[in-house]
Amino acid sequence: MANQVKNVQIAYIGGGSRGWAWGLMSDLASEQSISGTVKLYDLNYEAAQQNAIIGNRLLDRDDVVGHWEYEAVKTLKEALNGADFVIISILPGTFLEMKSDVHTPEQYGIYQSVGDTVGPGGMVRALRTIPLFVEIANQIKEHAPNAWVINYTNPMSLCTRTLYHVFPEIKAIGCCHEVFGTQKLLASMLEDLEGIRNVHRSDIKVNVLGINHFTWIDQASYQNIDLFPLYQKFVDKYYESGFEGKNTGNWLNDHFASAQRVKFDLFKKFGMIAAAGDRHLAEFMPNTWYLQSPEKVREWKFGLTPVDWRIERGKELYEKGKRLASGEESFVLNPTGEEGVQMMKALLGLGEIISNVNFPNRGQMAGVPEDVIVETNAVFRYNSVQPIFSGALPTSINNMVSRHIHIQEMTLKAAMDCDRSLALSAFKQDPLLSSITPEEAEELFEKMLFNTKSYLPGWEFETVKK
Amino acid sequence: MANQVKNVQIAYIGGGSRGWAWGLMSDLASEQSISGTVKLYDLNYEAAQQNAIIGNRLLDRDDVVGHWEYEAVKTLKEALNGADFVIISILPGTFLEMKSDVHTPEQYGIYQSVGDTVGPGGMVRALRTIPLFVEIANQIKEHAPNAWVINYTNPMSLCTRTLYHVFPEIKAIGCCHEVFGTQKLLASMLEDLEGIRNVHRSDIKVNVLGINHFTWIDQASYQNIDLFPLYQKFVDKYYESGFEGKNTGNWLNDHFASAQRVKFDLFKKFGMIAAAGDRHLAEFMPNTWYLQSPEKVREWKFGLTPVDWRIERGKELYEKGKRLASGEESFVLNPTGEEGVQMMKALLGLGEIISNVNFPNRGQMAGVPEDVIVETNAVFRYNSVQPIFSGALPTSINNMVSRHIHIQEMTLKAAMDCDRSLALSAFKQDPLLSSITPEEAEELFEKMLFNTKSYLPGWEFETVKK
Amino acid sequence: MANQVKNVQIAYIGGGSRGWAWGLMSDLASEQSISGTVKLYDLNYEAAQQNAIIGNRLLDRDDVVGHWEYEAVKTLKEALNGADFVIISILPGTFLEMKSDVHTPEQYGIYQSVGDTVGPGGMVRALRTIPLFVEIANQIKEHAPNAWVINYTNPMSLCTRTLYHVFPEIKAIGCCHEVFGTQKLLASMLEDLEGIRNVHRSDIKVNVLGINHFTWIDQASYQNIDLFPLYQKFVDKYYESGFEGKNTGNWLNDHFASAQRVKFDLFKKFGMIAAAGDRHLAEFMPNTWYLQSPEKVREWKFGLTPVDWRIERGKELYEKGKRLASGEESFVLNPTGEEGVQMMKALLGLGEIISNVNFPNRGQMAGVPEDVIVETNAVFRYNSVQPIFSGALPTSINNMVSRHIHIQEMTLKAAMDCDRSLALSAFKQDPLLSSITPEEAEELFEKMLFNTKSYLPGWEFETVKK
Amino acid sequence: MANQVKNVQIAYIGGGSRGWAWGLMSDLASEQSISGTVKLYDLNYEAAQQNAIIGNRLLDRDDVVGHWEYEAVKTLKEALNGADFVIISILPGTFLEMKSDVHTPEQYGIYQSVGDTVGPGGMVRALRTIPLFVEIANQIKEHAPNAWVINYTNPMSLCTRTLYHVFPEIKAIGCCHEVFGTQKLLASMLEDLEGIRNVHRSDIKVNVLGINHFTWIDQASYQNIDLFPLYQKFVDKYYESGFEGKNTGNWLNDHFASAQRVKFDLFKKFGMIAAAGDRHLAEFMPNTWYLQSPEKVREWKFGLTPVDWRIERGKELYEKGKRLASGEESFVLNPTGEEGVQMMKALLGLGEIISNVNFPNRGQMAGVPEDVIVETNAVFRYNSVQPIFSGALPTSINNMVSRHIHIQEMTLKAAMDCDRSLALSAFKQDPLLSSITPEEAEELFEKMLFNTKSYLPGWEFETVKK
Repeated sequence: MANQVKNVQIAYIGGGSRGWAWGLMSDLASEQSISGTVKLYDLNYEAAQQNAIIGNRLLDRDDVVGHWEYEAVKTLKEALNGADFVIISILPGTFLEMKSDVHTPEQYGIYQSVGDTVGPGGMVRALRTIPLFVEIANQIKEHAPNAWVINYTNPMSLCTRTLYHVFPEIKAIGCCHEVFGTQKLLASMLEDLEGIRNVHRSDIKVNVLGINHFTWIDQASYQNIDLFPLYQKFVDKYYESGFEGKNTGNWLNDHFASAQRVKFDLFKKFGMIAAAGDRHLAEFMPNTWYLQSPEKVREWKFGLTPVDWRIERGKELYEKGKRLASGEESFVLNPTGEEGVQMMKALLGLGEIISNVNFPNRGQMAGVPEDVIVETNAVFRYNSVQPIFSGALPTSINNMVSRHIHIQEMTLKAAMDCDRSLALSAFKQDPLLSSITPEEAEELFEKMLFNTKSYLPGWEFETVKK
Repeated sequence: MANQVKNVQIAYIGGGSRGWAWGLMSDLASEQSISGTVKLYDLNYEAAQQNAIIGNRLLDRDDVVGHWEYEAVKTLKEALNGADFVIISILPGTFLEMKSDVHTPEQYGIYQSVGDTVGPGGMVRALRTIPLFVEIANQIKEHAPNAWVINYTNPMSLCTRTLYHVFPEIKAIGCCHEVFGTQKLLASMLEDLEGIRNVHRSDIKVNVLGINHFTWIDQASYQNIDLFPLYQKFVDKYYESGFEGKNTGNWLNDHFASAQRVKFDLFKKFGMIAAAGDRHLAEFMPNTWYLQSPEKVREWKFGLTPVDWRIERGKELYEKGKRLASGEESFVLNPTGEEGVQMMKALLGLGEIISNVNFPNRGQMAGVPEDVIVETNAVFRYNSVQPIFSGALPTSINNMVSRHIHIQEMTLKAAMDCDRSLALSAFKQDPLLSSITPEEAEELFEKMLFNTKSYLPGWEFETVKK
Repeated sequence: MANQVKNVQIAYIGGGSRGWAWGLMSDLASEQSISGTVKLYDLNYEAAQQNAIIGNRLLDRDDVVGHWEYEAVKTLKEALNGADFVIISILPGTFLEMKSDVHTPEQYGIYQSVGDTVGPGGMVRALRTIPLFVEIANQIKEHAPNAWVINYTNPMSLCTRTLYHVFPEIKAIGCCHEVFGTQKLLASMLEDLEGIRNVHRSDIKVNVLGINHFTWIDQASYQNIDLFPLYQKFVDKYYESGFEGKNTGNWLNDHFASAQRVKFDLFKKFGMIAAAGDRHLAEFMPNTWYLQSPEKVREWKFGLTPVDWRIERGKELYEKGKRLASGEESFVLNPTGEEGVQMMKALLGLGEIISNVNFPNRGQMAGVPEDVIVETNAVFRYNSVQPIFSGALPTSINNMVSRHIHIQEMTLKAAMDCDRSLALSAFKQDPLLSSITPEEAEELFEKMLFNTKSYLPGWEFETVKK
Repeated sequence: MANQVKNVQIAYIGGGSRGWAWGLMSDLASEQSISGTVKLYDLNYEAAQQNAIIGNRLLDRDDVVGHWEYEAVKTLKEALNGADFVIISILPGTFLEMKSDVHTPEQYGIYQSVGDTVGPGGMVRALRTIPLFVEIANQIKEHAPNAWVINYTNPMSLCTRTLYHVFPEIKAIGCCHEVFGTQKLLASMLEDLEGIRNVHRSDIKVNVLGINHFTWIDQASYQNIDLFPLYQKFVDKYYESGFEGKNTGNWLNDHFASAQRVKFDLFKKFGMIAAAGDRHLAEFMPNTWYLQSPEKVREWKFGLTPVDWRIERGKELYEKGKRLASGEESFVLNPTGEEGVQMMKALLGLGEIISNVNFPNRGQMAGVPEDVIVETNAVFRYNSVQPIFSGALPTSINNMVSRHIHIQEMTLKAAMDCDRSLALSAFKQDPLLSSITPEEAEELFEKMLFNTKSYLPGWEFETVKK
């Protein structure tokens, strides 16, 4: 029967995850039109096994309408064989490497709010992630060349770029929820300014273009209402104070929250709506704009997320995992708001959706090179993802976006060739480092590279290094 | 209230039409979410007046849910002032000129099944239509620059191209139902081969690319069924006999019907589904393929539409118009199956649709130049039409499509500059004329041009001509 | 010393040739600034040996200023090892296959004046030549990746295209003298109309663009004289009679001569100077234009070259070769007028020249795809060939050129994949075949393919075939 | 006679100049193959008159072989009527405005070595120059649409871009001698490392690509010598000390001299030869690289050119002009080393040259947008300038070049639309300003704009401003 597809097989790379994996379980459990098997693969096999136990516990529950079996597997090959979908959600390296990514630059006065996309942290993370994605792409090429691949790992653009670079015929997309957050903000605005309540984010129609975490909206509407004039009013109203809405989080006590002041400032300066969280947006701009110092960050009302906090949070989830596996704690079905499951449905022929996606540029975004990964809307249908032509960014924004695209292209090449000189060249060109000297940049680069060296096969390091 | 938009203003150019105009009235009358005024403009003002009477009669009827007032106007300017939408559906010249377009080439053994798109007839029709569209584009630029313009006039590609050439910022699309017919054929196939009934054509998802009346489908699905392997079986089954389905028309007695043999043959030769009626498709191919003689046309089971038949049909409609206006005959609400009204709704922010559309190439179709009019899918939303990236045609088909694109570009330039030599050059390059000599082609060209000379301002003709 | 380069090593593929090889010997012998070794490789090793003897005889002569040693080698690898230059000038197949290429189509009323570039003959020749060039490209990649490769073999565009397709980093160019002939015609015109004598063809400056044997000139000058207005007069003067100049050959008795009437007619119709011999040009146009019948060919005053003539000529050269090798006949130094040796000099850093060359499109010719082989001017310098931006052809000509480019792209793919259906599709689209039916075209294609089947490894043929 | 062209008419815009104008006089006087009239137009008519006197004095001299009459004219129209060539060499504004361009940023710690191309000074200079070039382009369109236009004015890229933006059919080029200086450096290197003396710069063959004053060489040869390995040695030898050669100037006492250390450092970092003077190159890089402080500039051994020095120099030239006009001082013929006169000769059909030139991108430089002004080699012939395909810059350099291209595009648009917000956006994105905050940048921008306001028609300024 065409309204239901059974025996779908999903390979989950990073299947020991205690965040995205649980979210996927929840979303699959709540969707009745597809069912099948999820093979969990993780470098940490025990974690994958635990998740298999947690997932299979759902099979018996009355409130679960989507029936899926979970199985931990020991090799990537086992996960991929026969897969219809491959989900990639891994942590490249450990929190130790991430700690260096985020905090080593602070010795040079460089602060980062996330450190996983661009800036010194994002680039070094990319250098250690790309070899992992080369391996994944090669295995997909061999074992599941026709599967649809959904990547959630950061740095999103470079991970997805690597997949296509290694295996150009791959059917891969990169998914990210940052644009959803901006749609929610616009829905909140409708309530705040116009008293229109309960608008779902998917009813806010937006044209999206840019690169992941630095995406821009140049058209937004709700039914027959043009949202740009409203947004102008909204920015005028909340520019100084910021807007925090009803979100549970508050930028003072939540590392992920912000008061949207960066977003509002970018609108004033560039006339378009930046469609990612302030913590991400700030990292794409020159150091002197929003991240010059912790004080400045506070003025702009967003937060620097310390990696120690992530480590603590990891420990809590570890404990929770044990309780869920043992049955001590019951798994709560909680829709993630992600569209992964909807996308899989559409790709299976069940419905058609339009959503933003990271995809090689085939012309959908004018003014930037072919093949680089851009984020625009696309149409999802049976076995098909087709990007929608989204126009060009105005030159003022395109210049900033292109700069990051160029840096990413250099980073990819440097990672593929283990080319330290090219990597350094890319590093120095990052806007977050524009206020330190090339000599300082080189020193910082070497320190950071050394700290992540276990994940850099093929690179040379001196035996002793301070 | 956002679910309904009132006071919509439509300018209908060619508003005296007794085909498209009545269809639009019917579709508008059946759609409750929009209402407003339609201004009917026509060179034949009486015909427009009659249509206004016919349209306004609907206002009182209980079965009519869409409320529209109709008004005949004497100038284009009056029609355009304040328009939200402009619909263009005109007959360029009269049936006398069309008679020459279609039948003069028969003196040289050149047969045409329609004669309004390509071939000698299509080109000469273009030469007289382009000046009319130059005027329309200029008036829209002056009086309704922000209106959405929907063109139904053939030759579709060149009409739409002219609008953009004269006024590049125009928001115009060209709409054609030929792809719908192919979707219906695929739905019939599902019933014939798989016993799946009552599939609506819009549930057949297709990727469309090409130029109007020479459009191709390289992906087709219904729910989770890939339709290409089925179509292969279908062609094998019906290649010799043709497939006529349950359509009321039959190619032997209906000038518009065919048994799809041309479409099946093109599939065998090129591996893709041609998405237009056989009568149109045949005209894009070399003369020796399907139109070499009336006998060959009969073998391929489609028809040559004589213009005398159109003249007769015109007279019947004229009589019917009188009866409808006087109330002697009641207007029957009969959905046309066209998507014009759905598109207008989407552009007003009421829903979102994906449909095929003729639009300047912004990159949505690879392998052909920028700016030429191509037909692909697009997303329709509030004040926005965005083409969907549709890939490239295989070289074997692209060669044929590109040839017509080049000819159309020459024709546009020749029409704009009244350049007889360039027009002749284009004429000789048409595949339908590939079996006559350049000398014969020139002779034919001059005859046809002479026959349409009243609609060629700026071209020179000798006073006496046989 | 920088004005002289010694120890240059040339690999000559097709080194048993009795035409081009002797020409190269003559040109090398007359150029004192370079010297070295030529390794002659040929499927016919004896022919290569004979040429080595002939070449080495020159070493002792007083009138020879360029000192080169010739050596016949048994493998391609031996020829390529250490090569600075690779010259490719082979006959793909034998005259038997060529006889089928040229004369089999005559059974269907299709006449060809050369049959080695486009048309049915050119395409079938390409199908058997491409596998040979695949092998050559692979060997160059392995044994002489840094050598400069100069191809003289037809079909020029597809041979050169194959080299780049197989080994994208190859440094290859395709050289052809047809443009030189047109420069000579313009020099003759200067004498005929203006009384300016002794103008060397290289002083006629032309902008060249198109594809090999279908190249066009849109700018031509001699010193400060614009040659276009003169050419208009020249065409007016000689359109009917043709122009034969002082060339020894005459179109009535020389298979290679023409009276330029095709070239003049193309100028009248398209406004640009076609820059190849009439025999080549005619083959690119639809069958109905110049090659409809032997009578029409005579009217246009050019010739059909029978392959029997080539066979006879081959026998004469065979006898001459024996005499030259034995010393019975003395080798006459006779400059060929080719630029191969000048190009090698420039690539070695001795001087800088601008000349027309067949090269992948990097943007030097607008309006046609990237990477296909186009013919434009280029600058030759030390280890560098850089195409000159040459603009775009007007649409009327571009349409014809693009059609052949598309057909060539199909042919390449068909040859690489042994794809009979695609090859047939390309075959049917050739303008020379536009007046026969697709069924006739298929029949002809199969006959011709069968006749060349010994050179089509990987293609399937039924055991018995008439 | 074709070896000589008489009655050439040159319009010199900025003809009162005491630098370029005298240079042109000298070069014209030394070239015997062309002669004619130079019309001198200048806002300062007296200066033009004085130059006419100086120029006409040359007519009688025995050592002068090129015969030219000079005439001062009062309007641009008079100068342009009948012109074959238009030379543009103007000072936009006065030294007062230039003083603000160069020195106002020093209040914010921003130092500039020239201040006429990029950086805060270059941009503000562009804002006041573009309106002047709009006027010039319009006048050329009206009075001399077929003339060849040679621009020498900075900012070169934006001046030339403006000409094409206003009048797309203009035949304009931008000429600059900075690449010549790099060729001379390579010639000096040949002497220093290899003992090869007296090599003329034009025998150093280079492939050039980039934008004016930020041009790069990726291939360089002299005869059959590849200069890249030599340059590597050269950089290693002189990286620390710098290389000053035999130039009369020395970076310590000459504001225009440098020890090439910036150029050497860029080679070490990017692997390509930067082809402009260090003073220009430094301004394209982030502030922290070479221009962070006057001390750092001294370390890198180049100079900051104070505008006061230019003012002094202007006074000296003013006095000299008086002496030359009165005959008190004799005009010394001194070849400038510029190629303007050679280019004019080639465009008149007298010879063919290859030289670097600023020209709209038609594809000659890959990796950057169409139409922006790039600097590559081109072929100069009779009435023709054709760029040579020059490849793409490596991403690391392309990123920096593209950034400036984007800023220039914004500047052009801002100047055309008097769009302060866009101009400010461009200003903030300049690398020289990357270490100050956006707030400081805005403050600086407003000050600088105010100082140049007499040359900004259409921009609004408050009446009182500190």
